Amino acid sequence: LPLQSQEEKKKIEEVKLDIVFIGSGNVAWHLAQAMDLVGHHIIQVISRSDENAMALAMKLGARHTDDLSKTIVNADLYVLCVPDDNIQDVVRDLPELNAGLVHTSGPKSMDILSPKSKDIGIFYPLQTFSKHKEVDMFNVPIMLEASGNAFYAKLFDLADSISNTVLHVTLEDRVKYHLAAVFANNFANHLFYEASSYLKSNNLDFSVLKPLILETAAKIIDLDPEKAQTGPARRGDSETIHKHLELLNNHPRLKELYEALSKGIQAQITDE
Amino acid sequence: LPLQSQEEKKKIEEVKLDIVFIGSGNVAWHLAQAMDLVGHHIIQVISRSDENAMALAMKLGARHTDDLSKTIVNADLYVLCVPDDNIQDVVRDLPELNAGLVHTSGPKSMDILSPKSKDIGIFYPLQTFSKHKEVDMFNVPIMLEASGNAFYAKLFDLADSISNTVLHVTLEDRVKYHLAAVFANNFANHLFYEASSYLKSNNLDFSVLKPLILETAAKIIDLDPEKAQTGPARRGDSETIHKHLELLNNHPRLKELYEALSKGIQAQITDE
Repeated sequence: LPLQSQEEKKKIEEVKLDIVFIGSGNVAWHLAQAMDLVGHHIIQVISRSDENAMALAMKLGARHTDDLSKTIVNADLYVLCVPDDNIQDVVRDLPELNAGLVHTSGPKSMDILSPKSKDIGIFYPLQTFSKHKEVDMFNVPIMLEASGNAFYAKLFDLADSISNTVLHVTLEDRVKYHLAAVFANNFANHLFYEASSYLKSNNLDFSVLKPLILETAAKIIDLDPEKAQTGPARRGDSETIHKHLELLNNHPRLKELYEALSKGIQAQITDE
Repeated sequence: LPLQSQEEKKKIEEVKLDIVFIGSGNVAWHLAQAMDLVGHHIIQVISRSDENAMALAMKLGARHTDDLSKTIVNADLYVLCVPDDNIQDVVRDLPELNAGLVHTSGPKSMDILSPKSKDIGIFYPLQTFSKHKEVDMFNVPIMLEASGNAFYAKLFDLADSISNTVLHVTLEDRVKYHLAAVFANNFANHLFYEASSYLKSNNLDFSVLKPLILETAAKIIDLDPEKAQTGPARRGDSETIHKHLELLNNHPRLKELYEALSKGIQAQITDE
């Protein structure tokens, strides 16, 4: 047992990295702090918004700048957390790097990074992050890809130090996971928004729906979503559906969604 | 303090009711057991499906039958938990009742019950129930309506004995809450189903999305859904949206939903 502890300790020592974060948005905010927490050293935060960079850097005891030409060049790893559309421009403005460079985007190829490093990869945490909401990173799946085996092993140790679910996922599959995540997260959240704004426009209280929303998510942990389905479309209750559509006559966007989603649920029953 | 306890004890004694459940589906299953747990007596379960009635009755130490003409007539309360479309037929077949009668439907008027009792009302738990998923009833909002004050007080005590959120809600508002619940629960669950079946059709693992789904729901407890929104449509990332729509060329139903929901998110941004 003491031997095991020593081995474990050694492993943790081995994966302590000096890391530069490029970007200071929601993903950088949570990822950098999770890495810091397990003993990695975030040595610099670089961001167009020097204010955001400073706020994150202060939490980490890191340096910060808004100037990519001032990137610290002797780090062990560079983690790019910028919006997908900006990756190319940021890579162009980075200096040549002597260490690995990863981005954290779901849909983008790692090849976009190749101009600035020979070790390139993906470090994609499949989760929704907002600065003001804490996330338990240990339960966030991290999807990895790397240009070579040694660099993959380095990324694996890093991911493994902050999460209990680390997966090798190819670009093709990662894009599909990201697409499914858009349905499960962005689109589901949009339905919560529509429910909230509909109730608000009727002077009713959205908070009454919160236990239902929590249970909607909790159910699919144990039940397949097809088994968890209930409601008027599932039951084929055409009277209620008709009444709802009438109520939505002044909400054309909601009405369109109601029709498309009810049709989907009825097609789902046919699929079964 | 001893006095208060006595008062509390008295109150609990007062609200102990003899209750007949008509229906043995998901709502009856959870509601009857929650009432039993706090000391009410479920004396009979009546259901078209005598097998379901028996399963529930056995959990409650109640009698059971599939014959409405055998309804025990000296109960304190009758709780109707049958599909909306069957309420009218079941009421027709019930004997004349000497005690209050409620139904548990979101969208239906209580007037549908008036042929069989002078005390009628609504006891609507705003939650999604499946037999194989436990629910903490204490956090389920219960929406009440009653034909008179004395009967309302009786229903309030009963609801208050199993839940910490009891609300008086008119038919007009209840229908709107139910409609919002369809968006927040049925439609959100349908998106989980679509994400799951899309991943399955690509031999990918839906369980990887579960932490994301839990977080999607957990976020709106603290954040407004409009503040919680992230993703390609929120960012206006047209390249990713375009790539996703291409991937969905062989999934016309999913593609239609993707377009409608992305349009909704972009309209939501305009609303802000």
